[in-house]
Amino acid sequence: MSDTISLVHGAGGIETLKIILELTKDVKLRKVIGGTGLDELDDSALIPISENKFLAITVDSYTVNPIFFPGGDIGKLAATGTINDIAVMGATPLAVLDSIVVEEGFDKDLLLKIMNSFKKVLEKENVALIGGDFKVMPKGSLDKIIISTVGVGIVDKKNLLLDSNVKPDDQIIISGSIGEHGAIILALQLGLDVSNLKSDCETVTDIMKTVLKIGGVHAAKDPTRGGLAMALNEFAKKSNVTIIVDEDKIPIKEEVRSYCEMLGVDPLALACEGRVVLAVKKSKAHEILKELHDMGYEDACIIGEVKKLEPGIVLMKSKVGGLRILEPPLGEIIPRIC
Amino acid sequence: MSDTISLVHGAGGIETLKIILELTKDVKLRKVIGGTGLDELDDSALIPISENKFLAITVDSYTVNPIFFPGGDIGKLAATGTINDIAVMGATPLAVLDSIVVEEGFDKDLLLKIMNSFKKVLEKENVALIGGDFKVMPKGSLDKIIISTVGVGIVDKKNLLLDSNVKPDDQIIISGSIGEHGAIILALQLGLDVSNLKSDCETVTDIMKTVLKIGGVHAAKDPTRGGLAMALNEFAKKSNVTIIVDEDKIPIKEEVRSYCEMLGVDPLALACEGRVVLAVKKSKAHEILKELHDMGYEDACIIGEVKKLEPGIVLMKSKVGGLRILEPPLGEIIPRIC
Repeated sequence: MSDTISLVHGAGGIETLKIILELTKDVKLRKVIGGTGLDELDDSALIPISENKFLAITVDSYTVNPIFFPGGDIGKLAATGTINDIAVMGATPLAVLDSIVVEEGFDKDLLLKIMNSFKKVLEKENVALIGGDFKVMPKGSLDKIIISTVGVGIVDKKNLLLDSNVKPDDQIIISGSIGEHGAIILALQLGLDVSNLKSDCETVTDIMKTVLKIGGVHAAKDPTRGGLAMALNEFAKKSNVTIIVDEDKIPIKEEVRSYCEMLGVDPLALACEGRVVLAVKKSKAHEILKELHDMGYEDACIIGEVKKLEPGIVLMKSKVGGLRILEPPLGEIIPRIC
Repeated sequence: MSDTISLVHGAGGIETLKIILELTKDVKLRKVIGGTGLDELDDSALIPISENKFLAITVDSYTVNPIFFPGGDIGKLAATGTINDIAVMGATPLAVLDSIVVEEGFDKDLLLKIMNSFKKVLEKENVALIGGDFKVMPKGSLDKIIISTVGVGIVDKKNLLLDSNVKPDDQIIISGSIGEHGAIILALQLGLDVSNLKSDCETVTDIMKTVLKIGGVHAAKDPTRGGLAMALNEFAKKSNVTIIVDEDKIPIKEEVRSYCEMLGVDPLALACEGRVVLAVKKSKAHEILKELHDMGYEDACIIGEVKKLEPGIVLMKSKVGGLRILEPPLGEIIPRIC
């Protein structure tokens, strides 16, 4: 009997990376000349459009379940996640396209409500909706709705942020408390009381604009599927550096922490949908942090630093002082988190 | 009780257009300045990238059922359909991204096979695969697989083909016999004998390259969902012209015709996935046709012409001489055709 695809392949951890590598290993044209693509697997691919400008382009299919949750819905998430994937490249989001597949019998008012959430994000971000697709699958062949969103942005070479550009001595900053999106979706799927949880689903464009203006940013990433643990491991691996984070400093809301303890999941592997993790020049770290606090991101903090020790490794300094390797998550137990 | 979404909303006819217009009616930013988008609803949106070049970008979600069929599979279809949407703009396809959602338990060898079909098309077309997404939905929440494909191309202003550019006196050329993809999928869904049917799923890039070189092409369209009837109506409406087609001249294979008669469906509303309908300058029509025949497209023919009568109307000259309006299809009865 041949292998089958399991939920872990879609969870955004190591197993997702493995299946993507297997599906694409023999692709010869992996980027547009002068750009980036399958080898970099960054938040967006890059296509050069002039001597000093790239087009950044990304696509994601949003399958979140439930489709409405405290802090957002699948429409808000689909617009936000895609715009964030453009923004963390250092790019200015310009346009999106959306391809919606719904189940026959889906309530039209609900669809309009979801679409309104989607459009509200675009309007706030001054991003154009320029095209898309609309399909319907017969009753029973799709659970509700999938929204695939394409994001397009423009980035100056001087602003370009690649996962492979983290430097020794950089400071690692997280823009806010982690795991809230993952925690609320997990709790809802398990039918738990969620009165004190809320998704962090928000665009990070204002953060990116501000930190790019200050300068000294080497890399940025939104820690979605696979959470902070996956994002830091990608930084470390692609940049050939060691990242040492201080467990004590990682901001996690008490509600999230207690849910995670109860359910036995690691908050570091839980998706955020409105946070960004930055690798910044040491000399700029405090200025960036102060500015984030002034903007109202009061939980933003420096959680670690970059060293040139064993390349590709993330180390976690525990509360009692010991060092352990923070592995990339294999895959979460939570399907349809985004 | 509020309305619900039905299969007809996804069939690519008038009802699909209506729901898309309703979902997007209050979008303020409908294009990137200087480009095209929601108001044009062409096969691709356009983003200006230099004084005389546009980026063409499109997205489609492929949900075809069954996922394997004579002449192709969902992987070949997803790559072909997207590349064709770029090519009919007059653009050169450059790169694609794919976002795959599969059902938990999906056979891995099947997935690799589908992906191989997808990659084979890209390789043949010299198109790069530069990114994507991979998600898994729990067993029972998705019937097999959906592939959303993003296509990116570059087009010189002088080659740009818009649906709104059909001119009076243009000749209408179809590159081959119609309805084969729609007929095979319909027959398979109904469990009929399909030994004499095959999908026409193929890229139209060679056709587009050749006809652009000859010159005189005003508009091009691949008649997918909604078939030739929808494509011609879109030309007529967007260009404010009357198109008169000659029923007798439309190439339809005998097998397709007899299936359609048996099932009571109109072959003109059936999807093609490897044909292109062209509006060309009268003085160039015969040269273009001859070249298509020389390339091996022996069924290519002139099926009609463009007049400046009632704008937005397609008229059909019947075999016995009468004229009737060829309405755009409301929506086919065939779900998951592409």
